[in-house]
Amino acid sequence: MNFDKLFQAQLDTLKQEGNYRIFAELERKCGEFPRVTNHSKGQREVTVWCSNDYLGMGQHPKVIEAMVSTVQDCGTGAGGTRNISGNAWHHKQLEAELADLHHKEAALLFTSGYVSNWAALSTLGSRLPNAVILSDALNHASMIEGIRHARCQKVIWKHNDPEDLDRKLAALPANATKIVAFESVYSMDGDIAPIKEILDVCDKHGAMSYIDEVHAVGMYGPRGGGVAEREGLMDRITLIEGTLGKAFGVVGGYITGSHALVDFIRSFASGFIFTTALPPAVAAAATASIRHLKESSYERDMQKRQVARLRARLDAEGIPHERNPSHIIPVMVKDPVKCRMLSDILMEQFGIYVQPINYPTVPKGTERLRFTPGPLHTDEDIEYLVLALKTLWKQCAIAHAVA
Amino acid sequence: MNFDKLFQAQLDTLKQEGNYRIFAELERKCGEFPRVTNHSKGQREVTVWCSNDYLGMGQHPKVIEAMVSTVQDCGTGAGGTRNISGNAWHHKQLEAELADLHHKEAALLFTSGYVSNWAALSTLGSRLPNAVILSDALNHASMIEGIRHARCQKVIWKHNDPEDLDRKLAALPANATKIVAFESVYSMDGDIAPIKEILDVCDKHGAMSYIDEVHAVGMYGPRGGGVAEREGLMDRITLIEGTLGKAFGVVGGYITGSHALVDFIRSFASGFIFTTALPPAVAAAATASIRHLKESSYERDMQKRQVARLRARLDAEGIPHERNPSHIIPVMVKDPVKCRMLSDILMEQFGIYVQPINYPTVPKGTERLRFTPGPLHTDEDIEYLVLALKTLWKQCAIAHAVA
Repeated sequence: MNFDKLFQAQLDTLKQEGNYRIFAELERKCGEFPRVTNHSKGQREVTVWCSNDYLGMGQHPKVIEAMVSTVQDCGTGAGGTRNISGNAWHHKQLEAELADLHHKEAALLFTSGYVSNWAALSTLGSRLPNAVILSDALNHASMIEGIRHARCQKVIWKHNDPEDLDRKLAALPANATKIVAFESVYSMDGDIAPIKEILDVCDKHGAMSYIDEVHAVGMYGPRGGGVAEREGLMDRITLIEGTLGKAFGVVGGYITGSHALVDFIRSFASGFIFTTALPPAVAAAATASIRHLKESSYERDMQKRQVARLRARLDAEGIPHERNPSHIIPVMVKDPVKCRMLSDILMEQFGIYVQPINYPTVPKGTERLRFTPGPLHTDEDIEYLVLALKTLWKQCAIAHAVA
Repeated sequence: MNFDKLFQAQLDTLKQEGNYRIFAELERKCGEFPRVTNHSKGQREVTVWCSNDYLGMGQHPKVIEAMVSTVQDCGTGAGGTRNISGNAWHHKQLEAELADLHHKEAALLFTSGYVSNWAALSTLGSRLPNAVILSDALNHASMIEGIRHARCQKVIWKHNDPEDLDRKLAALPANATKIVAFESVYSMDGDIAPIKEILDVCDKHGAMSYIDEVHAVGMYGPRGGGVAEREGLMDRITLIEGTLGKAFGVVGGYITGSHALVDFIRSFASGFIFTTALPPAVAAAATASIRHLKESSYERDMQKRQVARLRARLDAEGIPHERNPSHIIPVMVKDPVKCRMLSDILMEQFGIYVQPINYPTVPKGTERLRFTPGPLHTDEDIEYLVLALKTLWKQCAIAHAVA
């Protein structure tokens, strides 16, 4: 039987819609980021403007040193699940660091942020009595899949709307175990949740709060504990989820919360139990990164400066971008083919790499370029990017549609 | 509301059943494996007998060198998803290596073997028209969760029974897209699937074949391509799934298959798309490990020798163990409390680390100790282990129950 025909038919549809993805093939060089070599068409140096290594910690000497020395000391892999020979004291050390970061009793590592959301939400929703998960309408795929996997009752509330959440919580029976799941910084729009108002509503209805801070940890709050730290709200949140793969510059995900909560997920989550632990060297690198960002505000301050600078320069040149209070600057294109075209021209003519953000990462019709300025982008980088966009906006018919 | 009470209640049940897990806290030292430091109760050197770093590749100089030099060159993390700035040429290189290993057109990396099974099966089952997944009764949790997530029709066939599979395939409608999912080496019992017979049945009914070779890659076949390579069957299998976290000594998972199949999963699998890519250094280390094991049979030969030796010595001393044709030696205890007790005594009195394998990893009542001899266990290690078991078997009332 020719299965390839089945696969190809669906791929053809993607291509026709302009949603077929082609990955840029990049090679980073320590010390040169955000400059990287693009191997996709010959070899060429380009500047990355869409990395989630938001603070450049992936090339920080302390982080590299921790990873290198731990590989040399302990080897390349954990050699088993956390339960079966794969639990290193590096994991325990990192979990203590994360619990401290969020002022929680305990933390638990996962192989990725995706898995931490999927595993934690599916375990809470499937194992707690009469569980109902109330999910913000724009929650990340990993949360959606976790909730779906839980097979408990699910209620979607309007994005960042505590009043709608309030109404929906009020409609639930008294004996329901209510779990309110939302993010702090929404990755694609860069807007930030009204955390305090959401927590007030949770308290009013006796609901558990579950916040995803993956696009905030390391970058917000005086120690990089996220938006909830900045706003003094960490102690009011039941479960804080985060990642080691973005601002911390490594890979992996985690949850933090009470001893009992973390022990519960540790003991019952299939996606935690049945998988090889992260390499000890990854844990050591993440620990070094978190520790550095607890002490140092330099990277956060420089990021803020360059984000503000890019926004101001875009405004000065009349290049439209979405207003939001975060470090993410989306420039809406609203068409997958044009979005890819703009991205291709930026790469080929200007050596600027910004990936087109198309479906399924964002809804069809909301395609965009998403810029993430960081502390390692220079003022000249910003000037050059603005010049490139200005040139394109002048040339391109799309400018009129978007403006 | 006191959520901790909800969590604690379920944890208490686990504890009462003897199924509460306590992780041994280990520190590996390169060059000393399977000797590690146990930090759990003071510091003590112990010998690991239950690692999935089956060939000790996690401390192989070539693998360490590849990881270290790539961290030094490229940094600690990928900095994004494969689509958004996280795709390194190290990933492409590793995927080419994996496609070659299994003689397939293409390969696709995932953050773990768990995620590769979950993402691939859920995508196939949910997106193919009239999909029915026929799952071996003892498939791994990651496959079960993937199939569950697919929400397509699911049929369980008797473990390793091609005749039962044949009957169940025959009962399906002609227009069903049939996907037969099974493993080669079953991790907990160490038995091996009759792959040829299963493929014959698949062909007879026009079914797709999906094999999980995570406990076989690196160890079976002349180049470490798994049991299917050893038996000359790789070209008859639609999708081969494997891991980089066991015999290859690093972390991560993958699938291999036709261009169209791999492109399909790449384009539609949520668990692939929405997650940070593995660090380039992890990819480089895995590539080095696979390349080494393609050329070198030394590790495989030594593993076979030590597995045979431990079996022979157990037989000579009358210590019961399950017969199977793999590298996994299960000693059945059939009680969670006794299983943990034996494991504790081995650790504390003998410095031997073998984790008790309890529910949910195995069904209740089939608790066991699971030994995985490797090329780095010496004859003296084996002698000492057998001596310890002999002593325990003599002392312990359990000996009579098990024998």
